[in-house]
Amino acid sequence: MAERFEIVEKALRKMLEGKKYATLRDVLVTMNPSDLAGLFSTLEEKQIPLMFRLLPKELAAETFVEMEPEAQELLIRGFSDNELKEVLDELYADDAADIVEEMPANVVKRILKHADPELRSSINQILRYPENSAGSIMTTEYVSLRPSMTVEEAILRIRRQGIDKETIYICYVISPDRKLIGLVTVKDLLLAEDDETQIQDIMLTHLIYVTTQTDQEEVARMFNKYNFLALPVVDGEHRMVGIVTFDDAMDVMEEEATEDIELMHAMTPSEKPYLRSTPFDLFKNRIPWLLLLMVSATFTGLIITAFEDALAAQVALTAFIPMLMGTGGNSGSQASVTVIRSLSLEELKFRDIGLVLWKELRTALLCGGFLAAACFVKIWLVDKMLLGNQDITLLVDLVVCLALLVTVIIAKAVGCILPMVAKALKLDPAVMSSPFVSTIVDALSLLVYFLFAKLILGV
Amino acid sequence: MAERFEIVEKALRKMLEGKKYATLRDVLVTMNPSDLAGLFSTLEEKQIPLMFRLLPKELAAETFVEMEPEAQELLIRGFSDNELKEVLDELYADDAADIVEEMPANVVKRILKHADPELRSSINQILRYPENSAGSIMTTEYVSLRPSMTVEEAILRIRRQGIDKETIYICYVISPDRKLIGLVTVKDLLLAEDDETQIQDIMLTHLIYVTTQTDQEEVARMFNKYNFLALPVVDGEHRMVGIVTFDDAMDVMEEEATEDIELMHAMTPSEKPYLRSTPFDLFKNRIPWLLLLMVSATFTGLIITAFEDALAAQVALTAFIPMLMGTGGNSGSQASVTVIRSLSLEELKFRDIGLVLWKELRTALLCGGFLAAACFVKIWLVDKMLLGNQDITLLVDLVVCLALLVTVIIAKAVGCILPMVAKALKLDPAVMSSPFVSTIVDALSLLVYFLFAKLILGV
Repeated sequence: MAERFEIVEKALRKMLEGKKYATLRDVLVTMNPSDLAGLFSTLEEKQIPLMFRLLPKELAAETFVEMEPEAQELLIRGFSDNELKEVLDELYADDAADIVEEMPANVVKRILKHADPELRSSINQILRYPENSAGSIMTTEYVSLRPSMTVEEAILRIRRQGIDKETIYICYVISPDRKLIGLVTVKDLLLAEDDETQIQDIMLTHLIYVTTQTDQEEVARMFNKYNFLALPVVDGEHRMVGIVTFDDAMDVMEEEATEDIELMHAMTPSEKPYLRSTPFDLFKNRIPWLLLLMVSATFTGLIITAFEDALAAQVALTAFIPMLMGTGGNSGSQASVTVIRSLSLEELKFRDIGLVLWKELRTALLCGGFLAAACFVKIWLVDKMLLGNQDITLLVDLVVCLALLVTVIIAKAVGCILPMVAKALKLDPAVMSSPFVSTIVDALSLLVYFLFAKLILGV
Repeated sequence: MAERFEIVEKALRKMLEGKKYATLRDVLVTMNPSDLAGLFSTLEEKQIPLMFRLLPKELAAETFVEMEPEAQELLIRGFSDNELKEVLDELYADDAADIVEEMPANVVKRILKHADPELRSSINQILRYPENSAGSIMTTEYVSLRPSMTVEEAILRIRRQGIDKETIYICYVISPDRKLIGLVTVKDLLLAEDDETQIQDIMLTHLIYVTTQTDQEEVARMFNKYNFLALPVVDGEHRMVGIVTFDDAMDVMEEEATEDIELMHAMTPSEKPYLRSTPFDLFKNRIPWLLLLMVSATFTGLIITAFEDALAAQVALTAFIPMLMGTGGNSGSQASVTVIRSLSLEELKFRDIGLVLWKELRTALLCGGFLAAACFVKIWLVDKMLLGNQDITLLVDLVVCLALLVTVIIAKAVGCILPMVAKALKLDPAVMSSPFVSTIVDALSLLVYFLFAKLILGV
C-alpha cells in the first residue's frame, strides 16, 4: 500500500512539473484529504501554492486541515484575502482553533480578521479553555433541536443546517435556556414510526456528557468505554456549548499512549513528531531525566565503595553485578509497566493495591525461583567449567543465586507499589516506570548481594 | 465520577438484596450498557441471573456484550432455550463471534444451535478469518444499496432494514455480482436536493477499503488517518463481505498500544486483563525474556572477569560501573522507544534511517557532553571531597567521564538502529527496546570503560 502511494505521488509531481494541470486536477479530486496532505508534504515550497490552487474549494479546505503547520503557514502567507476567506469559510471551528494555535501572531491576526464573526467568536471561545481540556478539543457546531419539534420538523432542520455541522448523526435537544435535556440520533428519527411524534417523546434523557474542564484523557476513555460517535460538552450551568467527535478522541488516545510511553522511558513528552524535532528539542526532553538518574546512581556507587574489601577478597563477585542489576531492573519494569498500563486503562484502582501486591509476590516467587535455579546451573556449567573461572566456588554460586531470588522479589514489589502510590498521590503513574524502579532496585539488590556475601562467605 | 458510580452500585445491590425489583428496574433502564456490565461484575454469582432478568430485552443483549466472559458463560448456562434465543437475536454478528471465541465447546454448540441460520453462518464466516485480521473483527451487517435506486428508495430501504444494522450512516453501493462500487452517507442522502436523484449519481466511487486479510493494526491506522465511521471489507474478488466500525478500531488501537508497551518491556503480550491473569499466566509471559536477558549478561560478566586485574589495581573504578551502565541503558532506551513509537505511528519509515541516525548522533553529543561535564564536577565535589573517597584521582575522574560520553553516543546509535533494522526485517520493532538495547550497551560500555582505563591509567 505504502509503496503504491509513493509511485502515485511521483507521477503526480511529474505532472505538476510538466504543467499538465488539467490531468493533474482530475486525479487530485479523486484523492482523500489525508493522502493529499501527505502528497503536499513531499513538494517543494514553491510547488505547494501551485498545486493547492488546483483543488476545488471544499477539498482544498479539508486538505488544508490535514497539512503540517509549516505548509499551512506558507499557504496562508501566500493567500489573497479572498482565498483566505474561502478556506476559512469551509473550516469547522475546532480545526480552525487548532490551526490558530500553531501560527505566529501576525498570521493569527490575519486569520481572525478574515473569519466571519461567528467563526471568530467560536475560535476565541475554544482557545480560552485550558490545554488538554474537553473545551479545547470540542467543536461548537452541532445540530440542536427543540423538545416540541416533530420528527418531520427535526429532519427538515437537519437538511437545512446539516451542511455546516461536523456530525449530523447525533442531535442534541436544548431547552429555551440552552440547557442540554436530551439527544436523538438520526437513526431514531429515520426509524420513527410516525413523522408527527414529538422529539421529547423519543429523545434519550439519561445522558452521558462532559464539562468544558474535563481532561481530554478522561474524554477519550469515555469514548472507548461507551462507543459514542460524539459526546456533548456542557458548561458549569449545564448549558450545551459543543461536542467532541470520535475522530478527535482517537487522536487523543494516540497522543496519550505516546505520552505514557515517553514518560515510562524517562522523557518529557513532546507534541512534535520525531522527524520535526531538532536535536536540541530532543536534548531538552531527555537531559533532565538522564541527569537525575545519573546523580541517583551515586547511591549504588557508595554501596560498592563500602563493600570494596569484600569485592577485593572475592574477585568473582564483581562479575555478577551487571547480571544481578539487569535482571532486577527487567523484573521490576515488567511489574511496573503492567500496573501503569492497567491504571491508565482504568482496569485497576488504588484500592486494588493488596490484590496487586499479592499477585506480584507469587509471580516473583515463580520467576525468582526459576531464574535462581537456572542461574545456579548456568554459573557452574558455563562460567566455572566451560569458561574456567576458578574463583567460582559452590558458596559464591549460592550467594549469587540467593541474591538473585531476593532481588526479583524486591523488584516486583517495588515495581508494582510505586505506580499505585503515584496514582494515589495524583501523580502520573507512568513516571514510576523502569528508570526509577531500576535505580531503587539497583541499590537494594547490591545491599542484598553484599549481605549474603557477608553471611555466607564471611567477607 | 468513579466514586459516584460506586455509591450508585452499592445502592442498587441493596435494592436487589431487599427484593425491591420494581424500583431497581426503573433505575437499571436509565443506565448505559457499559456501566451495567460494570455493575454486574461487582455482583455475586447467584445474583447475576436475577438482575439480568430485570433488564428489557434490547438493553439486556447490549449489556451482555459488554460483560466479562465468566459472567457471560454463567448466564448462558442458566438461560432457558428461549432466553438464549432472545439474547442471540439482538446481537450483531461480530459481537456474537467475539463471545463464541471465549466460550468452551459445549456452550458454543448450544449458542450455534439456537442462533438463527443467518447469524450462524455469519459467525462461522467471521471465525474462519485469521486472528487479528480485518475479517475477524468485521460485522457482516451493513446497509447495501443498488446504484439505480433513487434517494427516496434508499431512505426507505434504510428505514426498513436499519434496525438490525450496526451503523446506518454509511451505506455501500453493490453491483449485481456483489462487488463494492461506491458509498453514500446518510448525510448525502438527507442533504440531496432532489429525492429522485439516483444513487449512482451521488455516490463516492474512489473508495478506501480493506480486505478480509488486512492486519487489524493497519485497519486501526487507517481509521486514525482518515477519520471514517466505518471501513468496507472486501474479499479477494473485490466482493463486499462486511464492515469494520470505528468502535472496533478504537479497541484495536488500545490493544495494539498495550501490546507494544508489553513487548518493549520484555513481556509476551497477553489478551487477559491484569486482574484476571493468574501469577502463573504472568510467569509464563515474563520468564522467557528474563531468562534470555539473564543469560546474555554472561558477556558483561566475562568482560569484567577479563579486566579483573585492572579493577583490583584501581578499586575506585568498580563503584562507577552501575552509573555507567544505567546511564547507557537509559540513553539507549530513550532513542529506541522514540523510534519504535514513530515507526508504529508510521511517522518514520526504514528509508529515514540516515536522517534518524544523524539526528540521534547530534542529540547524543549534546546529552553525552552535558552529562560528562556534570559527572566530572559531581565526582570531584561529591564523591571525592564530600564523601572522601581518596581512591579518586583526576585521571580516574577523566576515565569515567570520557567513557560516559562514548557510552551515551553508542547507546543512542544502537537504540535507534536496532528498531529500524527490525522493521526492515519485518520483525516487530517493539522487541528491540530497552532490555535488548541495554544488554548490548552494557557490554559495549564496559569495553569502552576498560579501554580508557588502560589507555589513561595504564592498568
